[in-house]
Amino acid sequence: MQPKVSIIMGSTSDLKIMSEAAKFLDEMNIPFEINALSAHRTPDLVLDFAKKAHTRGVKVIIAGAGGAAHLPGVIAALTPLPVVGVPVKSSNSIDGWDSILSILQMPSGIPVATVALDGAKNAAILAMQIIATGEPEVHEKMMKFKSELADKIAQANKELAEVKFRNRVG
Amino acid sequence: MQPKVSIIMGSTSDLKIMSEAAKFLDEMNIPFEINALSAHRTPDLVLDFAKKAHTRGVKVIIAGAGGAAHLPGVIAALTPLPVVGVPVKSSNSIDGWDSILSILQMPSGIPVATVALDGAKNAAILAMQIIATGEPEVHEKMMKFKSELADKIAQANKELAEVKFRNRVG
Amino acid sequence: MQPKVSIIMGSTSDLKIMSEAAKFLDEMNIPFEINALSAHRTPDLVLDFAKKAHTRGVKVIIAGAGGAAHLPGVIAALTPLPVVGVPVKSSNSIDGWDSILSILQMPSGIPVATVALDGAKNAAILAMQIIATGEPEVHEKMMKFKSELADKIAQANKELAEVKFRNRVG
Amino acid sequence: MQPKVSIIMGSTSDLKIMSEAAKFLDEMNIPFEINALSAHRTPDLVLDFAKKAHTRGVKVIIAGAGGAAHLPGVIAALTPLPVVGVPVKSSNSIDGWDSILSILQMPSGIPVATVALDGAKNAAILAMQIIATGEPEVHEKMMKFKSELADKIAQANKELAEVKFRNRVG
Amino acid sequence: MQPKVSIIMGSTSDLKIMSEAAKFLDEMNIPFEINALSAHRTPDLVLDFAKKAHTRGVKVIIAGAGGAAHLPGVIAALTPLPVVGVPVKSSNSIDGWDSILSILQMPSGIPVATVALDGAKNAAILAMQIIATGEPEVHEKMMKFKSELADKIAQANKELAEVKFRNRVG
Amino acid sequence: MQPKVSIIMGSTSDLKIMSEAAKFLDEMNIPFEINALSAHRTPDLVLDFAKKAHTRGVKVIIAGAGGAAHLPGVIAALTPLPVVGVPVKSSNSIDGWDSILSILQMPSGIPVATVALDGAKNAAILAMQIIATGEPEVHEKMMKFKSELADKIAQANKELAEVKFRNRVG
Amino acid sequence: MQPKVSIIMGSTSDLKIMSEAAKFLDEMNIPFEINALSAHRTPDLVLDFAKKAHTRGVKVIIAGAGGAAHLPGVIAALTPLPVVGVPVKSSNSIDGWDSILSILQMPSGIPVATVALDGAKNAAILAMQIIATGEPEVHEKMMKFKSELADKIAQANKELAEVKFRNRVG
Amino acid sequence: MQPKVSIIMGSTSDLKIMSEAAKFLDEMNIPFEINALSAHRTPDLVLDFAKKAHTRGVKVIIAGAGGAAHLPGVIAALTPLPVVGVPVKSSNSIDGWDSILSILQMPSGIPVATVALDGAKNAAILAMQIIATGEPEVHEKMMKFKSELADKIAQANKELAEVKFRNRVG
Repeated sequence: MQPKVSIIMGSTSDLKIMSEAAKFLDEMNIPFEINALSAHRTPDLVLDFAKKAHTRGVKVIIAGAGGAAHLPGVIAALTPLPVVGVPVKSSNSIDGWDSILSILQMPSGIPVATVALDGAKNAAILAMQIIATGEPEVHEKMMKFKSELADKIAQANKELAEVKFRNRVG
Repeated sequence: MQPKVSIIMGSTSDLKIMSEAAKFLDEMNIPFEINALSAHRTPDLVLDFAKKAHTRGVKVIIAGAGGAAHLPGVIAALTPLPVVGVPVKSSNSIDGWDSILSILQMPSGIPVATVALDGAKNAAILAMQIIATGEPEVHEKMMKFKSELADKIAQANKELAEVKFRNRVG
Repeated sequence: MQPKVSIIMGSTSDLKIMSEAAKFLDEMNIPFEINALSAHRTPDLVLDFAKKAHTRGVKVIIAGAGGAAHLPGVIAALTPLPVVGVPVKSSNSIDGWDSILSILQMPSGIPVATVALDGAKNAAILAMQIIATGEPEVHEKMMKFKSELADKIAQANKELAEVKFRNRVG
Repeated sequence: MQPKVSIIMGSTSDLKIMSEAAKFLDEMNIPFEINALSAHRTPDLVLDFAKKAHTRGVKVIIAGAGGAAHLPGVIAALTPLPVVGVPVKSSNSIDGWDSILSILQMPSGIPVATVALDGAKNAAILAMQIIATGEPEVHEKMMKFKSELADKIAQANKELAEVKFRNRVG
Repeated sequence: MQPKVSIIMGSTSDLKIMSEAAKFLDEMNIPFEINALSAHRTPDLVLDFAKKAHTRGVKVIIAGAGGAAHLPGVIAALTPLPVVGVPVKSSNSIDGWDSILSILQMPSGIPVATVALDGAKNAAILAMQIIATGEPEVHEKMMKFKSELADKIAQANKELAEVKFRNRVG
Repeated sequence: MQPKVSIIMGSTSDLKIMSEAAKFLDEMNIPFEINALSAHRTPDLVLDFAKKAHTRGVKVIIAGAGGAAHLPGVIAALTPLPVVGVPVKSSNSIDGWDSILSILQMPSGIPVATVALDGAKNAAILAMQIIATGEPEVHEKMMKFKSELADKIAQANKELAEVKFRNRVG
Repeated sequence: MQPKVSIIMGSTSDLKIMSEAAKFLDEMNIPFEINALSAHRTPDLVLDFAKKAHTRGVKVIIAGAGGAAHLPGVIAALTPLPVVGVPVKSSNSIDGWDSILSILQMPSGIPVATVALDGAKNAAILAMQIIATGEPEVHEKMMKFKSELADKIAQANKELAEVKFRNRVG
Repeated sequence: MQPKVSIIMGSTSDLKIMSEAAKFLDEMNIPFEINALSAHRTPDLVLDFAKKAHTRGVKVIIAGAGGAAHLPGVIAALTPLPVVGVPVKSSNSIDGWDSILSILQMPSGIPVATVALDGAKNAAILAMQIIATGEPEVHEKMMKFKSELADKIAQANKELAEVKFRNRVG
């Protein structure tokens, strides 16, 4: 079976964040692969991976990195596939600003679809939305997922209802 | 004919930037629509648009906005489609930081695929990459586009070759 | 009895901060309601709430949210009432900058009265000041509250007086 | 006739921005006054003004200032009235950050209702919304103003309709 | 005996930082006073204090405050004395940026001598340097203090000498 | 005649800003000197200058610099005199942030009295305030200068009075 | 003749800045080459260049880039040579912050010697200093260059001497 | 035996960070020295050190400092040697921004080769790369070090392989 999403990260220190993407795809039954690659430590492997991913059936690449985060951009330069970038607030990051700016501010011609700082779960949702544009059954799953987002708020209101205030009305 | 990409913007003052997305799709022969909608001025229209876009055959929504830029996020909350957000450095923006952060930092569950500040062309490229995951002929066009990126550098080197320095070698 | 202030928040994770607003209104005997609503997860409920709040006797809306904080602005777009926005430094926020900018930098025509980061108590004071412009008895309470602010400094000076320094004089 | 809104600014160099507030109130037929006062150059006048404004029938104070902008906060400390603060990107400001932070980040007990950088018009709208909470006829005017916001978008779409693209559909 | 330096702070929560100034003056035998005053909570006391300080023999005022820190600037506006401002990274501060900018960016005509974030000790040294310009015996003490600064480095090198590295030479 | 204030700057490109300090001292009849010195280009001259300034009767040093602005701090390390630092937004500065932080954030033991970005006039006022602590006649001049600050506001109100608004009252 | 320094840039729009490096090397008679290469547009050429540069006698690589500036870091990952990175404030940069952070914040193991924003001349000086560590005659030239830096200040003081102030002394 | 690298730091509080540089040089058998010196506390020693370092056989200077970090720049002004600057996020630093900007933004003529915040190990690698340009055997060691960087990723992938996900493929 071929992976539809390929999750890559710059180092295993990013795994805690990036595994949120893997978990979401697991729940949604989207086949994926997850590996470590580094724009700086294994540039040849990155080139090989990026040039061939679309030939293996991969539809979307999710790349997470921290600090001067070059991995998502370097991959985006080499693949025709959409690349979702996850800025990671790693220990060597300045409050995440370096990760965000070095993933987001790509030059004309080579976009990276950047999500929020440490937003690996959102990256996986976005990957699923992208796949859904070509696969009706994934589209159905996405519709269902979206409709359940409101439940979290219903639950929040239940909790809120239990907080007592004297002048609370309605 | 149905549009595959829907480009929306918060005000016509964003048109100068956002028309770069339209131009790219035009060159690539991707059918699109382009309209103004405002999360703040026409919220009902935004809801209606966002809830129905996928039923009209739209595959990707590109939304540009400046300042406290709520349009991309509000649409992303209402559609199962991938939403590409373009932070616009409008006149009421603080060097673009407000636009970037209010588009990028979406909560868990509702991603916006954010591109660089004023990066409307990259938004269109990303939209095309997304469509390409489900349409082989668009994928082919994307492969061709990618292969031409290097030409810009070849041209740059030609220009550089004409600058004379005494100690330049090779 | 009708609530005069409606406190809403994007998720219960904001409750710790937002309950400071509820506590103050409770102390001041201003009737209020407090609920969770999300611009992203329950947009229809937000529209319904915002369009009708003024018909239920609500005078001021206090809305707190973190990250790409769209709730206060989206509500402000839909209600004729003044909306007080509380930027919350939630766990998914970049030191609060995203919350502040996405609440403060609203476009022309749709103001949000923004208070300090995590400033829920100040939001409630502001709500009371707004109500006081039309209700003399609330104005009296506000006058009294203001006159007591100096007490905190008097207490501070008592504490300071007990710190001994050799060369302290006066 | 008594002014309902008092607009003050730190120097006449802020007049270009602050006159937007006056213009809006003028259009809406809200009686107002407009003066220059400085927390630093005329502190006694500021104290006198702030302590007495509510006794003259003023309902809301709009205060604009740039750089280390102390005027809105100092007035808020002395009046029971709601104070709307307008951070001005004056020539001595660092891209407006100083103005925003020194108006927004008020301590507990003394809120300033801060609007966007250079957002004087929004300050006036907010002032009108505040007055409207106690005056039904102003509330009606505000309802009407809000309903007209969408017109700007309608106009924007007319302009957009005239831009021709080959692959534009719908 | 009259105090030569007056240390004031916005709240006792700033005492931990501001007591560093008191300790230094104590060591140097400079008579001082230390009190809490708030630009927002006790504006009348601030005015009274600031207008009279120079008549009581005070030579320098040290004012510390956090968040939208108006105390140093408001005092500077009212006194002919040099005012040293200490930006405090209080709990309601955004990493100290608000404190720094609202103390540093004073308008033309009303300087505040700003020191580093939480730099209360440096404020006291600066106060002593200012007094020293008119008092030769304080100048002598300052000369002595300055000459001892190098001792800290001598001690540092002793500690460093004890760390062993194989390839360390010299 | 001996200079009481020594103004130094890192390069003549800072002269436009720094001459504001000279002009103020000129108006106030405070004898001064003005020179260019560079922490980086003429370190020996800086050391010599800083070590001897107080022996020549100089009471205060004003040092302006931009970018990685080391001049004020390096001089402060070598002189017992108070050093006023002026961060200059020079062409090689990142919006002034580098100049501000490298002057303001001095380590414990070596304060620099930092004024606002490009605040050379305020530096001169501060220098005069410092001298005034030891010289009664300078103190008198400072009292007079302070009392005239309000005139600017009086003038501002005259200008404002001439702007006509229909609903302006009072 | 072999180039000792290789200057590369991401696009010819960086040439205006980067030619400052070339000019300096020209003046110093250091043989160099200058080319355009892009981490994103010509990744294969970048890999080939970076892997072989040291075999052609190149001693130092100077790489300039703007926005999400990956070129210096990607080259540094592939060469044993020291890489000097020049953050360029290009038109697609957010005041240069993105360029700086994506060049400076490299992960452990792959340093880039970063110079100031647009600091191409300093990059060339640094390159010459690096070469000088192994070539005595270049070291001599560097000694001479350093000794001439003070001349700029001497010239500055001549200019300053011509500005007349009434109270200027010494 | 002469040290080839001289590591200096502003205070022993920087030792925890700076010892990473020493450890790397130790592993690589590069002779070095390590000392504390302060631009502010021991300026004469800094001048003496910087002027003579190259006469003692030192090839590269690594200087670390935090806050208003003047040490690397002051040394760079006085030595013909390349100076590698390490911005340290010390306790008196504002999230490291002050350290970075006051080391990086050096004026034209005096470069400092700046590495990432707390990047002392990278500083040592860079120092070794610089030495390698003139010493073939050090170049060989650097080649070997570079080739081992990929091992970290191989190890990361081993760890990743052990994390089980249901839908993981390949």
